[in-house]
Amino acid sequence: MNSRKHLLQPILDSYRESGGINHVDRSNLPSKNAVAMLSEDLLHLLFPGFFSDEAVSSEQLPSAAQEIINKIADQLDSAITVSLREANTSDDELRKKASAITGRFFADIPGVRALLKTDVEAAYAGDPAARSLEEIVLAYPGLEAVAIQRVAHLLHRENVPLLPRMMTEWAHSRTGIDIHPGAAIGSHFFIDHGTGVVIGETCVIGNRVKLYHGVTLGARSFQKDEEGAIVKGLKRHPHVEDDVTIYPNGIILGGDTTIGARSTIGANVFLMKSVPPDTLLIRGEQIQSRLNKKGLKAHGGSGSVTVQIDADDIDFMI
Amino acid sequence: MNSRKHLLQPILDSYRESGGINHVDRSNLPSKNAVAMLSEDLLHLLFPGFFSDEAVSSEQLPSAAQEIINKIADQLDSAITVSLREANTSDDELRKKASAITGRFFADIPGVRALLKTDVEAAYAGDPAARSLEEIVLAYPGLEAVAIQRVAHLLHRENVPLLPRMMTEWAHSRTGIDIHPGAAIGSHFFIDHGTGVVIGETCVIGNRVKLYHGVTLGARSFQKDEEGAIVKGLKRHPHVEDDVTIYPNGIILGGDTTIGARSTIGANVFLMKSVPPDTLLIRGEQIQSRLNKKGLKAHGGSGSVTVQIDADDIDFMI
Amino acid sequence: MNSRKHLLQPILDSYRESGGINHVDRSNLPSKNAVAMLSEDLLHLLFPGFFSDEAVSSEQLPSAAQEIINKIADQLDSAITVSLREANTSDDELRKKASAITGRFFADIPGVRALLKTDVEAAYAGDPAARSLEEIVLAYPGLEAVAIQRVAHLLHRENVPLLPRMMTEWAHSRTGIDIHPGAAIGSHFFIDHGTGVVIGETCVIGNRVKLYHGVTLGARSFQKDEEGAIVKGLKRHPHVEDDVTIYPNGIILGGDTTIGARSTIGANVFLMKSVPPDTLLIRGEQIQSRLNKKGLKAHGGSGSVTVQIDADDIDFMI
Repeated sequence: MNSRKHLLQPILDSYRESGGINHVDRSNLPSKNAVAMLSEDLLHLLFPGFFSDEAVSSEQLPSAAQEIINKIADQLDSAITVSLREANTSDDELRKKASAITGRFFADIPGVRALLKTDVEAAYAGDPAARSLEEIVLAYPGLEAVAIQRVAHLLHRENVPLLPRMMTEWAHSRTGIDIHPGAAIGSHFFIDHGTGVVIGETCVIGNRVKLYHGVTLGARSFQKDEEGAIVKGLKRHPHVEDDVTIYPNGIILGGDTTIGARSTIGANVFLMKSVPPDTLLIRGEQIQSRLNKKGLKAHGGSGSVTVQIDADDIDFMI
Repeated sequence: MNSRKHLLQPILDSYRESGGINHVDRSNLPSKNAVAMLSEDLLHLLFPGFFSDEAVSSEQLPSAAQEIINKIADQLDSAITVSLREANTSDDELRKKASAITGRFFADIPGVRALLKTDVEAAYAGDPAARSLEEIVLAYPGLEAVAIQRVAHLLHRENVPLLPRMMTEWAHSRTGIDIHPGAAIGSHFFIDHGTGVVIGETCVIGNRVKLYHGVTLGARSFQKDEEGAIVKGLKRHPHVEDDVTIYPNGIILGGDTTIGARSTIGANVFLMKSVPPDTLLIRGEQIQSRLNKKGLKAHGGSGSVTVQIDADDIDFMI
Repeated sequence: MNSRKHLLQPILDSYRESGGINHVDRSNLPSKNAVAMLSEDLLHLLFPGFFSDEAVSSEQLPSAAQEIINKIADQLDSAITVSLREANTSDDELRKKASAITGRFFADIPGVRALLKTDVEAAYAGDPAARSLEEIVLAYPGLEAVAIQRVAHLLHRENVPLLPRMMTEWAHSRTGIDIHPGAAIGSHFFIDHGTGVVIGETCVIGNRVKLYHGVTLGARSFQKDEEGAIVKGLKRHPHVEDDVTIYPNGIILGGDTTIGARSTIGANVFLMKSVPPDTLLIRGEQIQSRLNKKGLKAHGGSGSVTVQIDADDIDFMI
């Protein structure tokens, strides 16, 4: 309809006035669609035969793999070139840099696959409802979120801006699991159910860690500079050591907070200080620490579990 | 680019070395795309006229219904045949078995629709923000998740592997609501908002139950065999009796845990033992039980509600 | 297959018997696909250049903007006409009414964009992990959910049924953030991570409010009429004043509940009564109020923070 012409001018005025949420005359952003396609293709590469509509045979595998590698490499080269454009270098230089990053990225894929195999095994061993390894790959959102984070982490380490965050946000949208590409995650990592999990940028997670849905590994408070602006880039998120399990909705905050090895953190716990290895921390001031966990009742009536840590050591623990 | 050829060999080596996350030379998995399409079509079948882009007339309905039935039946036959392939029987036998399952599946659809009608009514009656029954069908994620679970449950009862789990995981990805196809759910079931809800495989849920977002009906601990492996297939999840309401983030765990009829569980409660019928259980050790709920204050200041259950009966209740 | 004919009749019988979940012979519903397309297009309009696959130049901007405006206007005219069909007026009248609403909708877009600019700035200022304004627009689900809510709110104010709810539910499905189109939200609004956030229909939110994931601003209990049916349309949700921060999983309920300006509500708090301005409310009965927050320890051991509010004033606060 012609009558719509009068709608244009106020919108154009708004584009002029409210800057910062326009992106015009620049081409330094990967598109959301491109990131979605790249992420899907990466899942195909990481788990061959699982996500294709047709069965894949051994004979087809090399050519199918070469094809998906070429496709991903093209997409990565282009998305990285575009993302690096912030940095003010010549296009030729950028393409060379992007291509080097892409090469190192593929060289790290076998290592990522070896880690993902341990993640699948951990999920199968850790969930009585899991009937097969295939079920883990096809129906466990935690694996999808971790797979995308592990490859996005490779790009984050290369200081590629934007692209790795867009990849983990793609996975967040599909799974409800929000893992920053900066987080360093060990082997045999299992997130069950997963909706609401948040893992911050500077988290360090050991081996054989198990998280249930709703667990937050977040920041406590933000250091500010003299002008009151938040200081970026500091260690702000917890360290979770080997063999820790955190039950649903556990909230662990702070860059100085360490969950000691083999500890169990109960559902809904809110914790802002470190706990030593072998701690059982559950709500209701029922705490047992530094004990061989085999000696513990897995759950006791209130009062039946001895408090071994001074309650003052644990902020706001309920 | 030719230069990508060198990227192939390390990936192929990784495909050889890290087994278990490959799926090559086998064709026993339904594809994710096929499951997504099947699930969408089932919503069309269950709620005729709601999800189509064009209005449907009474005259068109029989032919439109026959068309969607044929499409779903083809997809089911094929996905079930593929899923059963694990079981090592001849393709002819598999197809016969799949076809029988598909037939029983359709015979149960009218019963599922009768249940879903009660679910829609419960949502309308239970949410002051709902303006029409149409709004429930079109904008309440809880209904979508429950609809898919109710049909996936039919396939789970037939011991079809993988497919029902992939269907509920499709709904989980769209709604944030994770209901295992094994859960047995009564009529008039209403999940409001829904993000973060987790309902485990062996849950039994009565009639007229209402859950808010973030509610977990989960397992407490896992029985292990002599070799330390988790025993699969036991009853591990709670029983929620008729007319129970559970407020946001309530976490109820354990196969022996029963929430008695007409009870109300407050927000953020963490519970691992049974509560008797007519219990009002809220955080802060404010518990009132076995009383006619009409005599209760809907909320009281701390100390104003009498504790009727011995606190020792309730694990970790905060 | 011919054999599928026998499957039809029981389904048709069910369509006759279980009414209320059929939508036949009527054409008063926007389709889910149409709402998804409209919502995507609105994001393009609000953030020009961010969501397009190709870069946009200043020269192209006017024609690209006119194109997206025309597309959205057509979709809105049609979806509003369809939605209003409930109201029993002539098609001609409906189209006139729809067109007037569409006109007012576009006139309000510059104002919405000005608000969204403040939202982007608040996210950048409030999250140390954010590296650029572009990252906020492309990878922060909170911004997407708030952008869709702000435009859906325009239609809600015009009493358009269904369509605004379907738009916010589209965003809910993608982000895990469930904001009712009725909520009134001030400037500089920032939702971090976002999964599990629920904001009810009659919420009023001031300026510079920051919510973390899992926060609920919900209803406490529902008033019923003489026949026991829930009364619709009352104020049921909290008022959150300027400069409030609510940490993960905070649950604030009730239409009479006001969170006073500059207050901080800790993680996992459950609150059903008002708190005065400048309150620090954290679990464990650690409350500090009416104090200059600069004088507070950001976190203290248990017992180290003085209780300034009578505990009886706070229901169920843990």
